[in-house]
Amino acid sequence: MKKIVFLAFMATMALTMSAQQELFGGAKGSPQVHGDNTVSFAIKAPQAQQVELQLDFDKPVAMERDTAGIWRHTTQPLAADLYLYNYVVDGVKTLDPDNVYIMRDVATTKNMFFVDGAQSRYYQALDVPHGNVSAVWYDSPTVGKRRRMMVYTPAGYEQGKQRYPVFYLLHGSGGDETAWLHQGQAAQVLDNLIAWGKAVPMIVVMPNGNVDEHAAPGSDQRGLVTPTFAHEQWMEGSFESSFHDIMDYVDKHYRTIRKQSGRAIAGLSMGGFHSLYISANQPKDFGYVGLFSAAIRPGRDVHSPIYDNLEQKLATQFNKDLKLYWIGIGSNDFLYRSNEQYRALLDRAGHRYTYVETTGGHEWRNWRRYLTQFVPLLFK
Amino acid sequence: MKKIVFLAFMATMALTMSAQQELFGGAKGSPQVHGDNTVSFAIKAPQAQQVELQLDFDKPVAMERDTAGIWRHTTQPLAADLYLYNYVVDGVKTLDPDNVYIMRDVATTKNMFFVDGAQSRYYQALDVPHGNVSAVWYDSPTVGKRRRMMVYTPAGYEQGKQRYPVFYLLHGSGGDETAWLHQGQAAQVLDNLIAWGKAVPMIVVMPNGNVDEHAAPGSDQRGLVTPTFAHEQWMEGSFESSFHDIMDYVDKHYRTIRKQSGRAIAGLSMGGFHSLYISANQPKDFGYVGLFSAAIRPGRDVHSPIYDNLEQKLATQFNKDLKLYWIGIGSNDFLYRSNEQYRALLDRAGHRYTYVETTGGHEWRNWRRYLTQFVPLLFK
Repeated sequence: MKKIVFLAFMATMALTMSAQQELFGGAKGSPQVHGDNTVSFAIKAPQAQQVELQLDFDKPVAMERDTAGIWRHTTQPLAADLYLYNYVVDGVKTLDPDNVYIMRDVATTKNMFFVDGAQSRYYQALDVPHGNVSAVWYDSPTVGKRRRMMVYTPAGYEQGKQRYPVFYLLHGSGGDETAWLHQGQAAQVLDNLIAWGKAVPMIVVMPNGNVDEHAAPGSDQRGLVTPTFAHEQWMEGSFESSFHDIMDYVDKHYRTIRKQSGRAIAGLSMGGFHSLYISANQPKDFGYVGLFSAAIRPGRDVHSPIYDNLEQKLATQFNKDLKLYWIGIGSNDFLYRSNEQYRALLDRAGHRYTYVETTGGHEWRNWRRYLTQFVPLLFK
Repeated sequence: MKKIVFLAFMATMALTMSAQQELFGGAKGSPQVHGDNTVSFAIKAPQAQQVELQLDFDKPVAMERDTAGIWRHTTQPLAADLYLYNYVVDGVKTLDPDNVYIMRDVATTKNMFFVDGAQSRYYQALDVPHGNVSAVWYDSPTVGKRRRMMVYTPAGYEQGKQRYPVFYLLHGSGGDETAWLHQGQAAQVLDNLIAWGKAVPMIVVMPNGNVDEHAAPGSDQRGLVTPTFAHEQWMEGSFESSFHDIMDYVDKHYRTIRKQSGRAIAGLSMGGFHSLYISANQPKDFGYVGLFSAAIRPGRDVHSPIYDNLEQKLATQFNKDLKLYWIGIGSNDFLYRSNEQYRALLDRAGHRYTYVETTGGHEWRNWRRYLTQFVPLLFK
């Protein structure tokens, strides 16, 4: 009997292994990252007329068919980073059947892989102590909903009694409370920075910035809806004005440092916009502010006291207790010009900030990088 | 400026929406579940020669091409349940480009959808209070590793002071600590059963049963490895003999009821095997035991005191403090015969147990169903 069980397991296992052995001559994993940082892709599609590889940083590349019907492509050496890709088989977008690691961006899914090296080691799960990550439901009386956030507590939190600073980390339009954990690899970034002594242990709170939803698509009563940028309430002040509900919950349920020097807030795109206005409206709450490719101005039809009198609010916010105001953006970002205007406004008022300009545009490659640069500056 | 942002967002959004409108004439979501429980599938593949639909309960079905190059199939009415599927486009396994909901089983990924109704409502996120779910790292000194488990705490846990019973829920071979949450929809099942008054609020602990790994593939220092059934240590006693490390952590860090009547253990396949031997070796620890399509006997070459003298151990375990010993299996399960032999052994010894036989085989459809039947029997 036991023999049958074992044979059944082994047969399934053999099937799994054989697909990859066929593609890469015995090597495991898909794609294959070589020692020189070139990367080989292979997909078996004997009946296909055309197969393309779509890497996240490049135009689609036509793959070449071998005599066994396996389509192949090997890249130039790639910089150490996290990469996404998919295939296009006879015009149909296809995830790699041999790679289970899939990342979602709004309504698009792609496979992922790492090219190992200094920058990508921030993003990988390494042999270091790991923090816990929890999906936490909290009441938001201000918007009248029970909502979900993700909370990272650093390794050691459960064993000790000490209080920790809190970093509120906000997603962009089309994102949700899971975005920084998945696309941003935030738990790995924090685990590694803390283990390497480059960042202090901190709690990271990742709320859902779309006040018309309870939780990420698929995790609330809307069911398996297609994720979208469209929201009934969108950058109109509700999230900012309900933010104290989140802070109240966190300060009540976690061992937090409950003062300005123990709180940071940052976000990407819409989350940068949220961070700008939350911190400007609560000038005594945040010692550290980060705007990653931030949207700056509300829409013309939006009227909320949250967005009124910005310059006056900034004049209050920029004082000796504001330890860091950090602005990062890529030179090709479609928000570059509005960020330039915002920096000019800060300059005119004599407000001091840190500015980091990178290559690239409005993309996760930059936001992950900004996270690795911003976190080491906090709470020191 | 704001206008550009808005236009960029809307353009991306429009792209997302238009794909589905094209497939289904304006209706959202993929696939389309109709009022009569028939389900329509559609994928645009104008260049393809052949497209098949693979549903998880059936043989592959050839889809039909319309004049626009969209391939379609509509099923017969389906019973309310959670279903998985993928397409095969010209011989290549393809996930649905219009469905972001993906479930992994060992090294295979498929898309998911619900047909609404009594059985599937257990599995769906509904408008009920939700428990929190945490990825928790704990030390296991017995195996010399820091390991990860998933912990569900019921809605209200954070607000009160009361103690809760604990249900240890174990995955099968090829699975990991995430299996019951994803494939088993365990958090949704618990949320719903508790909200409907069919189950008492409880903590559910889902450990990783593969002692040679720290955490699920992709979440520890092995990197983005291909998940496999093969483990260096496999059903040879190490997990069972280290289980007290998990219980110690849980009892120390959660408000648990620390006695037999407040503890249950159950699992599927290898996890049923683990539940059988953990509970037999710790006869005073578990008031409730569940074997879901359980493996029964260790391999012939395995020698561990964990597996010795089973009948003697069962004679100790089956006493008045054992409230429930539940065995469930499908009539087509390849483990049916060994379960039959095990029941005969229990019968000969006069040990009383609950037996549920269903249709179907060694499959998640059954294990989800067993969970919905087992949980209401606990801690009452």
